Amino acid sequence: MQKSNLLIVGSIGLDTIETTSTRVDRVLGGAASYSACSACHFTPTAIVGVVGDDFPPEHEEMLRSKSIDLTCMEKQPGKTFFWHGRYEDDMNIRETLDTQLGVFAEFSPKIPASHAATPYLFLANIHPQLQLDVLNAMQGNPLVAADTMNLWIDTTPDLLKKVIERVDIMFINDEEARMITGRTTIPKAADAIRAMGPKAAVVKRGDAGVMVFYEDDIFCLPAVPITANDPTGAGDAFAGGMMGYIASQGALNKPILRQSAVMGTVMASLTVEDFSLNRLVKVNADDIRDRVERLRSLTSFE
Amino acid sequence: MQKSNLLIVGSIGLDTIETTSTRVDRVLGGAASYSACSACHFTPTAIVGVVGDDFPPEHEEMLRSKSIDLTCMEKQPGKTFFWHGRYEDDMNIRETLDTQLGVFAEFSPKIPASHAATPYLFLANIHPQLQLDVLNAMQGNPLVAADTMNLWIDTTPDLLKKVIERVDIMFINDEEARMITGRTTIPKAADAIRAMGPKAAVVKRGDAGVMVFYEDDIFCLPAVPITANDPTGAGDAFAGGMMGYIASQGALNKPILRQSAVMGTVMASLTVEDFSLNRLVKVNADDIRDRVERLRSLTSFE
Repeated sequence: MQKSNLLIVGSIGLDTIETTSTRVDRVLGGAASYSACSACHFTPTAIVGVVGDDFPPEHEEMLRSKSIDLTCMEKQPGKTFFWHGRYEDDMNIRETLDTQLGVFAEFSPKIPASHAATPYLFLANIHPQLQLDVLNAMQGNPLVAADTMNLWIDTTPDLLKKVIERVDIMFINDEEARMITGRTTIPKAADAIRAMGPKAAVVKRGDAGVMVFYEDDIFCLPAVPITANDPTGAGDAFAGGMMGYIASQGALNKPILRQSAVMGTVMASLTVEDFSLNRLVKVNADDIRDRVERLRSLTSFE
Repeated sequence: MQKSNLLIVGSIGLDTIETTSTRVDRVLGGAASYSACSACHFTPTAIVGVVGDDFPPEHEEMLRSKSIDLTCMEKQPGKTFFWHGRYEDDMNIRETLDTQLGVFAEFSPKIPASHAATPYLFLANIHPQLQLDVLNAMQGNPLVAADTMNLWIDTTPDLLKKVIERVDIMFINDEEARMITGRTTIPKAADAIRAMGPKAAVVKRGDAGVMVFYEDDIFCLPAVPITANDPTGAGDAFAGGMMGYIASQGALNKPILRQSAVMGTVMASLTVEDFSLNRLVKVNADDIRDRVERLRSLTSFE
């Protein structure tokens, strides 16, 4: 197997997802699964995570079939992380019906020496203490990105701030950006986040797209206006696509960051077309190229 | 005076505006004022509206100084329309403290023969019956755009639908688009609006920018991320800029519609920099050109 260029730490889970028209049971989910399956289209990717002994072998096979390195995916006695959610007709609104942490409750990520010097690291949304543990276990000086959620802003803001201080790229949604900074506009919130440490703040706005703040540059990109069948994992696929593209380029600068946001947006828009990772695993280079052109035609003017 | 190319019907008012840092009293406001002051940068523009005998002469002089045709602006005994609003620190949230219709309560727009054949017509946000009255008073076959607000969707939906059936371009914000169509996503709501009659649906999303739907074309444009000092009239300046630009081109097609949304966005972003129409009246061609380039640099990628 090719040496991994990007290490992704986060949840691997089984999801039961209901929409107004469809229900799927115990399908593959989790932030690490979505972001790795997105990133792997751009760069060799490894997952750090944990599953239970109930984890279906076909999911493991599928991940391996995408050349995702599972060396750091532990299997522990017990149940795999489980989430059950229901989307309303307006898919911006979802209700969590059940969450069972299972083996994820005692997860302590281990980074073997073989992977400690991976040059790119993405800390997907997990407890900030685990994000810090992984940061401390890394060798060399990886380029680090992190994602988070409102839960950690509410419950462990100080730990989360310690993470933010140490990352190069912070992914955050617009409401969370306002929550953690107390600033009311996105540009001011993004400036406040960058003042905490990160070089770049990537503010996710759902179906309103994304704003990327880096040095004196602001990049605004819409979401692709398509009908989502299952919005689960869109943010993870977005971040995975961005980080996979940046890792593939081996540098961080304005044009690469802009292009990476395009790739992230493309991967997110493909992800939501089908449930779970069903569409994401089938994506090919033509799909990506076509959707980049669609995004260009959505945004260009004379 | 040059013959008007664009007729704008709507409110002309006096606003008292409070933000967390500033208060201004009885400054010039109203949808027609903002949209005409924006449109006049692109094409000769006339206002149809009413003011009371308390309307300060300096406001009238200012409008005339922008070559806005006030032939159809009636002066009636009584008070000019008055609005008093207060913005929170998050300027997306505002509270109306007072509204006094004054002479606007009995307003019945009259279109003199000299103006009935104006080729472009913008029905700014007023009672849908007045919008219909103006439509019925026009001669020839003007290209018509209309704006509206949640009040009319709640109180006179059938009349509003009669307006929508007869316009070429419908301006509407995202929540209103969902309200009037019962559809949950913006593309579906825009399709439903276009199925009612309009060739183009222009969905305004505040600081998330705008989406323009026309034939098989979708155009997404972000708002310019600046700190607003007074967001009043941003939507009116946007629509006025769009309609002024379209009227100046003398045709409606995909590139012109896209470019007009750029001009509308530029004019809205300039408007919110200062209170009332203070910034809008000072705009020159360089300001517009510079901001078009800023918008291009916000959205372009390789």
